[in-house]
Amino acid sequence: MHNEQLESCAALPPMTAIGVIHTPFANAEGSPIQSRYAAGAEGTAVLLPEFEPALRNLEGFERVWLLYLLDRASTPKLVVCPYLDTLEHGIFATRAPARPNPIGLSAVRLLGIDGLKLRFADVDMLDGTPLLDIKPYVPEFDSFPASRAGWYEGRLRPDVVADGRFEKRDN
Amino acid sequence: MHNEQLESCAALPPMTAIGVIHTPFANAEGSPIQSRYAAGAEGTAVLLPEFEPALRNLEGFERVWLLYLLDRASTPKLVVCPYLDTLEHGIFATRAPARPNPIGLSAVRLLGIDGLKLRFADVDMLDGTPLLDIKPYVPEFDSFPASRAGWYEGRLRPDVVADGRFEKRDN
Repeated sequence: MHNEQLESCAALPPMTAIGVIHTPFANAEGSPIQSRYAAGAEGTAVLLPEFEPALRNLEGFERVWLLYLLDRASTPKLVVCPYLDTLEHGIFATRAPARPNPIGLSAVRLLGIDGLKLRFADVDMLDGTPLLDIKPYVPEFDSFPASRAGWYEGRLRPDVVADGRFEKRDN
Repeated sequence: MHNEQLESCAALPPMTAIGVIHTPFANAEGSPIQSRYAAGAEGTAVLLPEFEPALRNLEGFERVWLLYLLDRASTPKLVVCPYLDTLEHGIFATRAPARPNPIGLSAVRLLGIDGLKLRFADVDMLDGTPLLDIKPYVPEFDSFPASRAGWYEGRLRPDVVADGRFEKRDN
Protein backbone atom coordinates (compact mmCIF):
# COMPACT_ATOMS: atom_id res chain seq x y z
CA MET A 1 0.00 0.00 0.00
CA HIS A 2 1.51 3.31 -1.01
CA ASN A 3 0.67 6.66 0.44
CA GLU A 4 -1.01 7.94 -2.73
CA GLN A 5 -3.33 4.96 -2.50
CA LEU A 6 -4.19 5.44 1.14
CA GLU A 7 -6.34 8.50 0.68
CA SER A 8 -8.66 6.81 -1.76
CA CYS A 9 -8.59 3.31 -0.33
CA ALA A 10 -11.67 1.88 1.27
CA ALA A 11 -11.87 1.13 4.96
CA LEU A 12 -9.80 -1.84 6.03
CA PRO A 13 -11.42 -5.24 6.55
CA PRO A 14 -13.74 -5.20 9.57
CA MET A 15 -12.63 -6.59 12.90
CA THR A 16 -14.92 -8.97 14.77
CA ALA A 17 -15.10 -9.56 18.50
CA ILE A 18 -13.63 -12.88 19.66
CA GLY A 19 -15.38 -12.50 23.01
CA VAL A 20 -16.35 -10.01 25.67
CA ILE A 21 -14.48 -8.72 28.72
CA HIS A 22 -16.26 -8.41 32.07
CA THR A 23 -14.81 -6.09 34.71
CA PRO A 24 -16.01 -4.26 37.82
CA PHE A 25 -16.02 -0.98 35.87
CA ALA A 26 -19.42 -0.07 34.43
CA ASN A 27 -18.41 3.53 33.74
CA ALA A 28 -15.19 5.38 33.05
CA GLU A 29 -15.60 7.63 36.07
CA GLY A 30 -13.40 6.22 38.82
CA SER A 31 -11.99 3.38 36.70
CA PRO A 32 -8.22 2.69 36.48
CA ILE A 33 -6.32 4.68 33.86
CA GLN A 34 -3.91 1.78 33.27
CA SER A 35 -3.75 -1.91 34.18
CA ARG A 36 -0.63 -1.14 36.24
CA TYR A 37 -2.78 1.10 38.45
CA ALA A 38 -5.77 -1.28 38.68
CA ALA A 39 -4.75 -2.47 42.19
CA GLY A 40 -5.24 -6.08 41.13
CA ALA A 41 -8.86 -5.63 39.98
CA GLU A 42 -10.16 -8.94 38.64
CA GLY A 43 -12.09 -9.54 35.46
CA THR A 44 -12.92 -12.27 32.97
CA ALA A 45 -13.09 -12.74 29.25
CA VAL A 46 -15.57 -15.14 27.72
CA LEU A 47 -14.65 -16.23 24.23
CA LEU A 48 -16.95 -17.43 21.46
CA PRO A 49 -17.00 -21.25 21.33
CA GLU A 50 -15.15 -21.47 18.00
CA PHE A 51 -11.99 -20.07 19.64
CA GLU A 52 -11.42 -22.77 22.28
CA PRO A 53 -8.62 -24.46 20.26
CA ALA A 54 -6.86 -21.08 19.94
CA LEU A 55 -6.17 -21.08 23.71
CA ARG A 56 -3.98 -24.19 23.74
CA ASN A 57 -0.88 -23.69 25.96
CA LEU A 58 -1.83 -20.15 26.92
CA GLU A 59 -1.96 -21.17 30.59
CA GLY A 60 1.84 -21.13 30.88
CA PHE A 61 2.00 -17.36 30.54
CA GLU A 62 1.94 -15.10 33.57
CA ARG A 63 0.68 -12.13 31.58
CA VAL A 64 -1.12 -11.62 28.30
CA TRP A 65 -1.78 -8.61 26.11
CA LEU A 66 -5.45 -7.94 25.59
CA LEU A 67 -6.32 -5.92 22.50
CA TYR A 68 -9.85 -4.63 22.64
CA LEU A 69 -12.23 -2.16 21.11
CA LEU A 70 -12.55 1.06 23.09
CA ASP A 71 -16.26 0.97 22.25
CA ARG A 72 -17.29 3.81 24.54
CA ALA A 73 -14.55 6.24 23.56
CA SER A 74 -15.60 9.61 22.20
CA THR A 75 -14.98 10.61 18.61
CA PRO A 76 -11.22 10.79 17.99
CA LYS A 77 -9.30 13.79 19.25
CA LEU A 78 -5.92 14.68 17.77
CA VAL A 79 -4.70 16.63 20.79
CA VAL A 80 -5.69 15.78 24.37
CA CYS A 81 -4.96 16.73 27.93
CA PRO A 82 -4.30 13.29 29.46
CA TYR A 83 -5.01 12.22 33.03
CA LEU A 84 -1.39 12.48 34.12
CA ASP A 85 -0.67 16.00 32.89
CA THR A 86 -2.18 19.46 32.72
CA LEU A 87 -0.65 20.14 29.30
CA GLU A 88 -1.88 19.04 25.88
CA HIS A 89 -0.18 16.28 23.92
CA GLY A 90 -0.82 14.65 20.57
CA ILE A 91 -3.08 11.61 20.95
CA PHE A 92 -0.26 9.36 19.63
CA ALA A 93 1.96 10.61 22.50
CA THR A 94 -0.66 9.43 25.03
CA ARG A 95 -2.56 6.29 25.94
CA ALA A 96 -5.92 8.09 26.01
CA PRO A 97 -8.85 6.20 24.43
CA ALA A 98 -10.13 8.87 22.00
CA ARG A 99 -7.90 7.53 19.21
CA PRO A 100 -8.38 7.47 15.42
CA ASN A 101 -8.54 3.65 15.65
CA PRO A 102 -9.91 2.96 19.14
CA ILE A 103 -7.86 -0.13 20.00
CA GLY A 104 -6.99 -0.60 23.68
CA LEU A 105 -3.90 -2.48 24.84
CA SER A 106 -3.41 -3.82 28.37
CA ALA A 107 -0.92 -6.28 29.87
CA VAL A 108 -3.07 -8.19 32.37
CA ARG A 109 -2.16 -11.05 34.71
CA LEU A 110 -3.61 -14.39 33.64
CA LEU A 111 -5.09 -16.10 36.70
CA GLY A 112 -6.67 -19.13 35.07
CA ILE A 113 -8.48 -20.63 32.11
CA ASP A 114 -11.65 -22.70 32.38
CA GLY A 115 -12.84 -23.70 28.93
CA LEU A 116 -13.81 -20.48 27.18
CA LYS A 117 -13.53 -18.35 30.30
CA LEU A 118 -10.28 -16.61 31.21
CA ARG A 119 -9.69 -14.94 34.56
CA PHE A 120 -7.40 -11.93 34.87
CA ALA A 121 -6.04 -9.52 37.44
CA ASP A 122 -5.07 -5.89 36.74
CA VAL A 123 -7.97 -5.21 34.39
CA ASP A 124 -8.58 -1.58 33.45
CA MET A 125 -11.19 -1.80 30.69
CA LEU A 126 -14.92 -1.14 30.98
CA ASP A 127 -17.37 -3.96 31.57
CA GLY A 128 -18.69 -5.40 28.31
CA THR A 129 -15.68 -4.39 26.20
CA PRO A 130 -15.38 -6.35 22.91
CA LEU A 131 -12.18 -8.41 22.87
CA LEU A 132 -10.19 -8.38 19.61
CA ASP A 133 -7.04 -10.38 20.31
CA ILE A 134 -4.98 -12.10 22.99
CA LYS A 135 -1.19 -12.24 22.64
CA PRO A 136 1.20 -13.84 25.13
CA TYR A 137 3.38 -11.36 27.04
CA VAL A 138 6.99 -12.30 26.30
CA PRO A 139 9.56 -10.17 28.18
CA GLU A 140 12.17 -10.75 25.47
CA PHE A 141 9.84 -9.04 22.97
CA ASP A 142 7.92 -6.62 25.16
CA SER A 143 9.97 -5.52 28.15
CA PHE A 144 12.22 -2.45 27.91
CA PRO A 145 12.48 -1.31 31.52
CA ALA A 146 14.85 1.61 30.90
CA SER A 147 13.09 3.06 27.85
CA ARG A 148 12.80 6.85 28.05
CA ALA A 149 9.16 7.79 28.57
CA GLY A 150 8.88 11.41 27.37
CA TRP A 151 6.39 13.61 29.21
CA TYR A 152 5.30 10.72 31.49
CA GLU A 153 8.61 10.87 33.35
CA GLY A 154 8.05 12.40 36.76
CA ARG A 155 4.27 12.46 36.21
CA LEU A 156 3.35 8.86 37.02
CA ARG A 157 0.76 8.70 39.80
CA PRO A 158 -0.90 5.39 40.75
CA ASP A 159 -3.69 7.22 42.60
CA VAL A 160 -5.14 8.97 39.55
CA VAL A 161 -8.37 7.48 38.19
CA ALA A 162 -10.38 8.20 35.04
CA ASP A 163 -13.07 10.86 34.94
CA GLY A 164 -14.93 10.19 31.71
CA ARG A 165 -13.35 12.98 29.66
CA PHE A 166 -12.61 10.60 26.76
CA GLU A 167 -15.96 8.81 26.63
CA LYS A 168 -19.13 9.44 24.65
CA ARG A 169 -21.75 11.51 26.40
CA ASP A 170 -25.31 10.28 26.58
CA ASN A 171 -26.80 13.71 26.13
CA MET B 1 -22.01 -6.02 24.89
CA HIS B 2 -23.11 -9.35 26.31
CA ASN B 3 -22.10 -12.72 25.04
CA GLU B 4 -25.56 -13.61 23.77
CA GLN B 5 -25.43 -10.48 21.66
CA LEU B 6 -22.00 -11.18 20.25
CA GLU B 7 -23.03 -14.02 17.99
CA SER B 8 -25.60 -11.95 16.16
CA CYS B 9 -23.90 -8.59 16.27
CA ALA B 10 -22.62 -7.02 13.10
CA ALA B 11 -18.95 -6.51 12.44
CA LEU B 12 -17.33 -3.82 14.56
CA PRO B 13 -16.75 -0.34 13.14
CA PRO B 14 -14.09 -0.41 10.42
CA MET B 15 -10.54 0.63 11.13
CA THR B 16 -8.81 3.05 8.78
CA ALA B 17 -5.10 3.36 8.09
CA ILE B 18 -3.47 6.44 9.63
CA GLY B 19 -0.43 5.96 7.39
CA VAL B 20 1.83 3.38 5.84
CA ILE B 21 4.99 1.71 7.13
CA HIS B 22 8.00 1.29 4.87
CA THR B 23 10.60 -1.34 5.74
CA PRO B 24 13.34 -3.29 3.96
CA PHE B 25 11.13 -6.40 3.98
CA ALA B 26 9.15 -6.88 0.76
CA ASN B 27 8.30 -10.49 1.60
CA ALA B 28 7.91 -12.56 4.73
CA GLU B 29 10.64 -14.99 3.70
CA GLY B 30 13.78 -13.99 5.59
CA SER B 31 12.14 -11.14 7.50
CA PRO B 32 12.51 -10.75 11.30
CA ILE B 33 10.02 -12.70 13.41
CA GLN B 34 10.02 -9.97 16.09
CA SER B 35 11.28 -6.40 16.40
CA ARG B 36 13.69 -7.61 19.12
CA TYR B 37 15.35 -9.81 16.50
CA ALA B 38 15.38 -7.22 13.71
CA ALA B 39 19.07 -6.38 14.29
CA GLY B 40 18.30 -2.67 14.22
CA ALA B 41 16.62 -2.72 10.80
CA GLU B 42 15.39 0.78 9.95
CA GLY B 43 12.04 1.81 8.55
CA THR B 44 9.71 4.76 8.32
CA ALA B 45 6.05 5.53 8.73
CA VAL B 46 4.41 8.26 6.68
CA LEU B 47 1.19 9.53 8.20
CA LEU B 48 -1.74 11.11 6.44
CA PRO B 49 -1.56 14.94 6.68
CA GLU B 50 -4.57 15.23 9.03
CA PHE B 51 -2.61 13.45 11.79
CA GLU B 52 0.30 15.87 12.15
CA PRO B 53 -1.14 17.46 15.36
CA ALA B 54 -1.51 13.99 16.88
CA LEU B 55 2.30 13.62 17.00
CA ARG B 56 2.91 16.53 19.39
CA ASN B 57 5.49 15.60 22.09
CA LEU B 58 5.99 12.08 20.74
CA GLU B 59 9.68 12.84 20.13
CA GLY B 60 10.49 12.45 23.85
CA PHE B 61 9.85 8.71 23.78
CA GLU B 62 12.63 6.24 23.12
CA ARG B 63 10.23 3.54 21.93
CA VAL B 64 6.70 3.45 20.60
CA TRP B 65 4.19 0.67 20.04
CA LEU B 66 3.10 0.37 16.45
CA LEU B 67 -0.25 -1.33 15.89
CA TYR B 68 -0.72 -2.30 12.28
CA LEU B 69 -2.79 -4.43 9.98
CA LEU B 70 -1.17 -7.75 9.12
CA ASP B 71 -2.49 -7.28 5.60
CA ARG B 72 -0.64 -10.17 4.00
CA ALA B 73 -1.43 -12.76 6.70
CA SER B 74 -3.21 -15.90 5.60
CA THR B 75 -6.75 -16.68 6.66
CA PRO B 76 -6.85 -17.14 10.44
CA LYS B 77 -5.59 -20.39 11.92
CA LEU B 78 -6.67 -21.44 15.41
CA VAL B 79 -3.68 -23.71 16.02
CA VAL B 80 -0.23 -23.07 14.58
CA CYS B 81 3.32 -24.34 14.71
CA PRO B 82 5.21 -21.10 15.40
CA TYR B 83 8.73 -20.24 14.25
CA LEU B 84 10.29 -20.91 17.63
CA ASP B 85 8.86 -24.36 18.27
CA THR B 86 8.18 -27.65 16.55
CA LEU B 87 4.96 -28.21 18.49
CA GLU B 88 1.51 -26.75 17.87
CA HIS B 89 0.07 -24.00 20.04
CA GLY B 90 -3.19 -22.07 20.03
CA ILE B 91 -2.86 -18.88 17.98
CA PHE B 92 -3.57 -16.81 21.13
CA ALA B 93 -0.55 -18.45 22.79
CA THR B 94 1.69 -17.25 19.94
CA ARG B 95 2.61 -14.03 18.17
CA ALA B 96 2.02 -15.54 14.71
CA PRO B 97 0.23 -13.27 12.20
CA ALA B 98 -2.58 -15.63 11.07
CA ARG B 99 -4.90 -14.30 13.80
CA PRO B 100 -8.70 -13.89 13.88
CA ASN B 101 -8.17 -10.11 13.97
CA PRO B 102 -4.85 -9.56 12.17
CA ILE B 103 -3.44 -6.75 14.30
CA GLY B 104 0.34 -6.63 14.65
CA LEU B 105 2.10 -5.13 17.67
CA SER B 106 5.77 -4.11 17.74
CA ALA B 107 7.81 -2.00 20.16
CA VAL B 108 10.15 -0.10 17.81
CA ARG B 109 12.82 2.49 18.59
CA LEU B 110 11.86 6.01 17.56
CA LEU B 111 14.82 7.61 15.79
CA GLY B 112 13.27 10.87 14.70
CA ILE B 113 10.22 12.74 13.45
CA ASP B 114 10.22 15.07 10.44
CA GLY B 115 6.74 16.42 9.86
CA LEU B 116 4.59 13.44 8.92
CA LYS B 117 7.54 11.07 8.56
CA LEU B 118 8.73 8.97 11.52
CA ARG B 119 11.97 7.02 11.46
CA PHE B 120 12.32 3.81 13.46
CA ALA B 121 14.84 1.10 14.24
CA ASP B 122 13.97 -2.53 15.02
CA VAL B 123 11.18 -2.78 12.46
CA ASP B 124 9.85 -6.26 11.71
CA MET B 125 6.78 -5.60 9.57
CA LEU B 126 6.48 -5.96 5.80
CA ASP B 127 6.96 -2.99 3.49
CA GLY B 128 3.69 -1.20 2.79
CA THR B 129 1.95 -2.30 5.99
CA PRO B 130 -1.07 -0.13 6.92
CA LEU B 131 -0.48 1.63 10.25
CA LEU B 132 -3.43 1.69 12.69
CA ASP B 133 -2.11 3.34 15.84
CA ILE B 134 0.97 4.67 17.61
CA LYS B 135 1.17 4.51 21.41
CA PRO B 136 4.10 5.70 23.52
CA TYR B 137 6.06 2.90 25.20
CA VAL B 138 5.91 3.56 28.94
CA PRO B 139 7.96 1.08 31.04
CA GLU B 140 5.70 1.63 34.05
CA PHE B 141 2.76 0.33 31.99
CA ASP B 142 4.43 -2.08 29.59
CA SER B 143 7.57 -3.58 31.09
CA PHE B 144 7.38 -6.80 33.12
CA PRO B 145 10.89 -8.23 32.76
CA ALA B 146 10.35 -11.29 34.96
CA SER B 147 6.99 -12.35 33.57
CA ARG B 148 6.80 -16.11 32.96
CA ALA B 149 6.71 -16.75 29.21
CA GLY B 150 5.18 -20.22 28.83
CA TRP B 151 6.45 -22.34 25.95
CA TYR B 152 8.78 -19.54 24.75
CA GLU B 153 11.07 -20.12 27.73
CA GLY B 154 14.23 -21.85 26.57
CA ARG B 155 13.13 -21.54 22.93
CA LEU B 156 14.12 -17.93 22.16
CA ARG B 157 16.52 -17.76 19.22
CA PRO B 158 17.51 -14.42 17.70
CA ASP B 159 18.79 -16.11 14.54
CA VAL B 160 15.42 -17.49 13.42
CA VAL B 161 13.76 -15.62 10.54
CA ALA B 162 10.31 -15.93 8.97
CA ASP B 163 9.60 -18.33 6.13
CA GLY B 164 6.22 -17.25 4.82
CA ARG B 165 4.18 -20.00 6.46
CA PHE B 166 1.63 -17.50 7.79
CA GLU B 167 1.19 -15.42 4.65
CA LYS B 168 -1.26 -15.61 1.76
CA ARG B 169 -0.08 -17.56 -1.23
CA ASP B 170 -0.31 -16.03 -4.69
CA ASN B 171 -1.23 -19.27 -6.37
